Amino acid sequence: MAIEASKSEHRAAKIRLGMVGGGQGAFIGAVHRMAARLDDHYDLVAGALSSTAEKSLASGRDLGLDPERCYGSFQEMADKESARPDGIEAVSIVTPNHVHFAAAKAFLEKGIHVICDKPLTSNLEDAKALKAVADKAKALFILTHNYTGYPMVRHARELVRSGELGDIRLVQMEYPQDWLAEPVEQTGSKQAAWRTDPAQSGVGGSTGDIGTHAYNLGSFISGLELDELAADVHTFVEGRRLDDNAHVMLRFKGGAKGMLWCSQVATGNENGLKVRIYGTKAGIEWTQADPNYLWFTRLGEPKQLITRGGAGANSAAARVTRIPSGHPEGYLEAFATIYSEAAAAIQAARTGAAVDPAVVYPTVDDGVKGVAFVTACIESGKKNGGWVKV
Amino acid sequence: MAIEASKSEHRAAKIRLGMVGGGQGAFIGAVHRMAARLDDHYDLVAGALSSTAEKSLASGRDLGLDPERCYGSFQEMADKESARPDGIEAVSIVTPNHVHFAAAKAFLEKGIHVICDKPLTSNLEDAKALKAVADKAKALFILTHNYTGYPMVRHARELVRSGELGDIRLVQMEYPQDWLAEPVEQTGSKQAAWRTDPAQSGVGGSTGDIGTHAYNLGSFISGLELDELAADVHTFVEGRRLDDNAHVMLRFKGGAKGMLWCSQVATGNENGLKVRIYGTKAGIEWTQADPNYLWFTRLGEPKQLITRGGAGANSAAARVTRIPSGHPEGYLEAFATIYSEAAAAIQAARTGAAVDPAVVYPTVDDGVKGVAFVTACIESGKKNGGWVKV
Amino acid sequence: MAIEASKSEHRAAKIRLGMVGGGQGAFIGAVHRMAARLDDHYDLVAGALSSTAEKSLASGRDLGLDPERCYGSFQEMADKESARPDGIEAVSIVTPNHVHFAAAKAFLEKGIHVICDKPLTSNLEDAKALKAVADKAKALFILTHNYTGYPMVRHARELVRSGELGDIRLVQMEYPQDWLAEPVEQTGSKQAAWRTDPAQSGVGGSTGDIGTHAYNLGSFISGLELDELAADVHTFVEGRRLDDNAHVMLRFKGGAKGMLWCSQVATGNENGLKVRIYGTKAGIEWTQADPNYLWFTRLGEPKQLITRGGAGANSAAARVTRIPSGHPEGYLEAFATIYSEAAAAIQAARTGAAVDPAVVYPTVDDGVKGVAFVTACIESGKKNGGWVKV
Amino acid sequence: MAIEASKSEHRAAKIRLGMVGGGQGAFIGAVHRMAARLDDHYDLVAGALSSTAEKSLASGRDLGLDPERCYGSFQEMADKESARPDGIEAVSIVTPNHVHFAAAKAFLEKGIHVICDKPLTSNLEDAKALKAVADKAKALFILTHNYTGYPMVRHARELVRSGELGDIRLVQMEYPQDWLAEPVEQTGSKQAAWRTDPAQSGVGGSTGDIGTHAYNLGSFISGLELDELAADVHTFVEGRRLDDNAHVMLRFKGGAKGMLWCSQVATGNENGLKVRIYGTKAGIEWTQADPNYLWFTRLGEPKQLITRGGAGANSAAARVTRIPSGHPEGYLEAFATIYSEAAAAIQAARTGAAVDPAVVYPTVDDGVKGVAFVTACIESGKKNGGWVKV
Repeated sequence: MAIEASKSEHRAAKIRLGMVGGGQGAFIGAVHRMAARLDDHYDLVAGALSSTAEKSLASGRDLGLDPERCYGSFQEMADKESARPDGIEAVSIVTPNHVHFAAAKAFLEKGIHVICDKPLTSNLEDAKALKAVADKAKALFILTHNYTGYPMVRHARELVRSGELGDIRLVQMEYPQDWLAEPVEQTGSKQAAWRTDPAQSGVGGSTGDIGTHAYNLGSFISGLELDELAADVHTFVEGRRLDDNAHVMLRFKGGAKGMLWCSQVATGNENGLKVRIYGTKAGIEWTQADPNYLWFTRLGEPKQLITRGGAGANSAAARVTRIPSGHPEGYLEAFATIYSEAAAAIQAARTGAAVDPAVVYPTVDDGVKGVAFVTACIESGKKNGGWVKV
Repeated sequence: MAIEASKSEHRAAKIRLGMVGGGQGAFIGAVHRMAARLDDHYDLVAGALSSTAEKSLASGRDLGLDPERCYGSFQEMADKESARPDGIEAVSIVTPNHVHFAAAKAFLEKGIHVICDKPLTSNLEDAKALKAVADKAKALFILTHNYTGYPMVRHARELVRSGELGDIRLVQMEYPQDWLAEPVEQTGSKQAAWRTDPAQSGVGGSTGDIGTHAYNLGSFISGLELDELAADVHTFVEGRRLDDNAHVMLRFKGGAKGMLWCSQVATGNENGLKVRIYGTKAGIEWTQADPNYLWFTRLGEPKQLITRGGAGANSAAARVTRIPSGHPEGYLEAFATIYSEAAAAIQAARTGAAVDPAVVYPTVDDGVKGVAFVTACIESGKKNGGWVKV
Repeated sequence: MAIEASKSEHRAAKIRLGMVGGGQGAFIGAVHRMAARLDDHYDLVAGALSSTAEKSLASGRDLGLDPERCYGSFQEMADKESARPDGIEAVSIVTPNHVHFAAAKAFLEKGIHVICDKPLTSNLEDAKALKAVADKAKALFILTHNYTGYPMVRHARELVRSGELGDIRLVQMEYPQDWLAEPVEQTGSKQAAWRTDPAQSGVGGSTGDIGTHAYNLGSFISGLELDELAADVHTFVEGRRLDDNAHVMLRFKGGAKGMLWCSQVATGNENGLKVRIYGTKAGIEWTQADPNYLWFTRLGEPKQLITRGGAGANSAAARVTRIPSGHPEGYLEAFATIYSEAAAAIQAARTGAAVDPAVVYPTVDDGVKGVAFVTACIESGKKNGGWVKV
Repeated sequence: MAIEASKSEHRAAKIRLGMVGGGQGAFIGAVHRMAARLDDHYDLVAGALSSTAEKSLASGRDLGLDPERCYGSFQEMADKESARPDGIEAVSIVTPNHVHFAAAKAFLEKGIHVICDKPLTSNLEDAKALKAVADKAKALFILTHNYTGYPMVRHARELVRSGELGDIRLVQMEYPQDWLAEPVEQTGSKQAAWRTDPAQSGVGGSTGDIGTHAYNLGSFISGLELDELAADVHTFVEGRRLDDNAHVMLRFKGGAKGMLWCSQVATGNENGLKVRIYGTKAGIEWTQADPNYLWFTRLGEPKQLITRGGAGANSAAARVTRIPSGHPEGYLEAFATIYSEAAAAIQAARTGAAVDPAVVYPTVDDGVKGVAFVTACIESGKKNGGWVKV
């Protein structure tokens, strides 16, 4: 109950933010905006919200943007905003995957920090190229693998880092959904249409959309590096052009093993992301739909249910906790934490100050690993499930 | 999955908001600010954040307020803001309970809309007086019984209204916590100190702080009016000046019965608010810590787990849902819904437009009922648990 | 995993058992027989299974009884079996409540041990009279409050006894069902017919059938003695002659408080027996439908989920555990534990040996308390919920 | 509540039963005996309970067996019992795996029905040979894959058979434990010793002990035939001679896919057997630790929680249900159902009567499939996870 809820509210001047994508009818754009607002570190002041100037303007008006700062393309926005004295300091890229690379590159090259939705890019070549750009750029690159922002995920990661789990043996990840159990991309679902279109999504369907989330999360918590994988990748729904289910066996460097299952046709599942990690000393289990709980069991002891904000929560969890235990935080709060971590880094970058080492966010390197994971899944699938190094 | 997440973002001009209380070290003030920001209907522009001008200024600076609009008292703020052409249109009152009455009165009388934390006031006399003021005022009065903003609570309420439960027989409410299991008010907890102080909290301890929440929620969902109650009210912790546990039997008008249990000494409970309602045709169960789920069982049929955003969610739930099923919303989102409902009403009030009849928020009448409930509990307790009409 | 499953199997000669009631179409008789068989301490050899000699014989044949030992009345069975050298040593009484008293008396007076279903009798006068008989008798009296046989209930009781909970403050009990939500006693349900018939059930409906179970269980675990209660007792279903819902406030000797809710009209509930006990140091929660789990939370520590047979289970639980953790035991096993505890006492009584002090079963005293509880509920109900001493 | 609990009690003459294995200190033997007793279809009258005549006699005495019918070897028991007019009709084989083949053969060849623990044998050659023996024998062979006896498993199977799930796409199985997370076979655990000894267990460790259970259960419910698998089989604990973890990808005939994970080193898991099956129309999820519940979700409808004995339970479940919903049945009851199904078949075989087509139990064919599964896992593991046809 001693949580100082106001701690994550802004202290420094707010960050001037632009957005690429996220216009009328988009889903994830609104999520990014709510996440950016929650802790009050950002002012959304510009947008290339849609692919045409007209639509972009209409969407910008809805959001109260200055019409002059509603642009018809990300390139125009990068050029003009970087030329303004009050231009944006950071940009959120919330388009379909295939746009990420070019848009991110445009802003990074202008020294504008990039907060980009996942996966990093639609193919591995672009991913590596973007990493090269990001590594050279003066601006920061933050990838919104938002599940890493959940307090109990932070708690879990800290348990691993502190050795409480002993040596990790097993990392079990799964992300079942059912929203593509029928060919809804053929019957008007805009979300489904682009996510099942190779031109917009990239090589992976379920692997790219949700498998990469599960993989990132397992890696984030366990700290393990993947060595190789074997994947049985499949498309169940007739006519679909990308995979909608994948079973993957994993071997990590150092000897740990794991499995990953992602599915968009597992009837009865909404967003069933779950990570379970077992070590020689203890095991943990976390489920995204019930994110305020973490099961933690030391070998030979009773199971413990660690709650966000509760008695057993560690400092890594407390750092990103807003409200007391028993009052649930959710998906938007976790997403907002990514934005607040980004803000801490961006605000430090203004003056070249050191970033608090407790600040953690997914980077371009995590993004490359995610795309490499998807690519390896697809490759293994084509080789009838043979092992592929990543 | 067809949720249009952006729908609750602002369309009309934002509302200029002030805040009374909620300065450095306060908890609920920060919650109100996050709630006000989430859907982007408000701009916080003024504050009487603390009881002295100096502290108020320091807190205001943290929040980026214009120092000129950081006031030393709510009265000063009411006077000066109402005199400005760009003065606040609404104010959030987030002080300890004993201040609610005078502060709300000051703003209402200036025609400034009031968004006030619960309970309405610290005693029934004030509550009735405030109702008289609010009834006469041109401004709106919104009480932040925030649990009414949860989508599954809205779903449940609609089930009752549509007759799906049949005639209501039973309303079982409970709100156990454990944070006052020891005399922490004697060892430096600021939150505990004012909540256990009759001068600041009013006549009720656990009854006023959390019992009133449970009672409001049960009433909100069931639509029932309480007729009488019998309460065994007790203080377990030695030296504590207000109740920390109450067992209450309830009789509603029309013949339904119920129980309410609130406790601040139930070891192992965080914020265990739960409401169960049973009718002749069906029953429902909802738990605040897991708010995205609603159990719904028709007599003689299998139990159903309705999920927020999921297949079975009705339009009353969908109206206040931001993100897809399986991605949990939490306490702050429910709180934000109160702010967004208030915004809809306030924005309509600007022009005298009719408010969308789907807009729902707790009013001063609900506040009077809540204080009457607490008062009746205390009175019954003093009468050794005899029945008291409310 | 080190559970020696065979430990509860018989070592001593099996006990010759008779049964009163439990003929064709009865429910609880079959449960008693399965319970008696599970750990192999009994041989069922005689029965007065129905109220007529003919039906009793037919039922006995189904069970493979010697027709000669199928009796037309309990009195006949008591007389004849007590005269046989191989006559029954113990009898199970599984009739409707109103028969318990006379049947138990008949066997106790013949020196035959009685294992009797609850409630003890259909009214308090009989209960006290039966206690007088039992106190004088050389035979034992065991009451099958079967929920006391669950390992996690034993664990919970031991936690209280060992002081792990500190001073008990609160005992919350509930037992909601929905099987009488409609007037099924009027439409052919034999179970419902006798349970809602005052002549067969006694003064209490839901209070006697399930309230008394919840009360017994709360008392068994907490070790507390009830001082007084206030009950709002109600019959929701038109035409029903006994209560189908009761809300009860409880005050225990020593200062603890509690509530008990029992209902047969709570739509969606099957056998929702739940006990929660909160002390100054820790709290526990146990639910009968998920009996292999016990929540245990020390103040200021994470919640623990103790599992039957698992790492945290204490010796009181282990004593009555048959199979390893993760392989659930259920209702019949708990019931069988009552039979096995009874067997230990009966076998000791053969030789006058001391009974292992770890052996625990509900006695006639518990039965009197149970009937007193029901009687007090009804009395309080008639006094409009006024307090009644028990 | 209309469950006629007595229905599964015996009607026909009880079956004279012998037992091989299950002497003092054994675990599973006691489980089989409880299972055989529960529904009262068997009389245990003979045993070769241990590997020496002396120990067998001591164990038999504990169980009240006639010393003359306590044998020093299964062969002696088969010979002598088959020569007695009152000899055993059936035998339970509850030894370590490597004894199954020879013991089962000995009894089958004498016309004595065999109820045998799983896996069928310790290698595939024996399994096929035993099938040949069983196919020729006049006696029945029942394999105690006990999880198939759970009512909600029967319900699930019937859902698939009736087409409620549509075409099956995915079968996800897992069975994690943690009891072998440390090398307890080196520190005195008798259970661990034989289960990790290739000479007694066979080729598979976790795959044979629990993987085969999960595989059998998934097959039982889904009705699918496995086509091929790819397995990453591993031993985490140093010095262990059999696998203690396996990740398996599965392809079923007809196009369904699946995964199976079994582990004995997954810290915090007791007996975490879980099966999830997803079809084009609906999905189901069942967990052995909470066996009275089945999640069932039709595409686009709310999740349903089907409860054993509850409103939604189908006739396949009701057939094997003993007590009302909300009163949990457990592992022993499911095990007893296998014995009762076997009894129905054995009793029919006495007279050559037709067996009720509703009677279902695992057969020698299921046993061969199970050993083939284990063998294929090990083979795939040796081939670095390449696909192996089964």
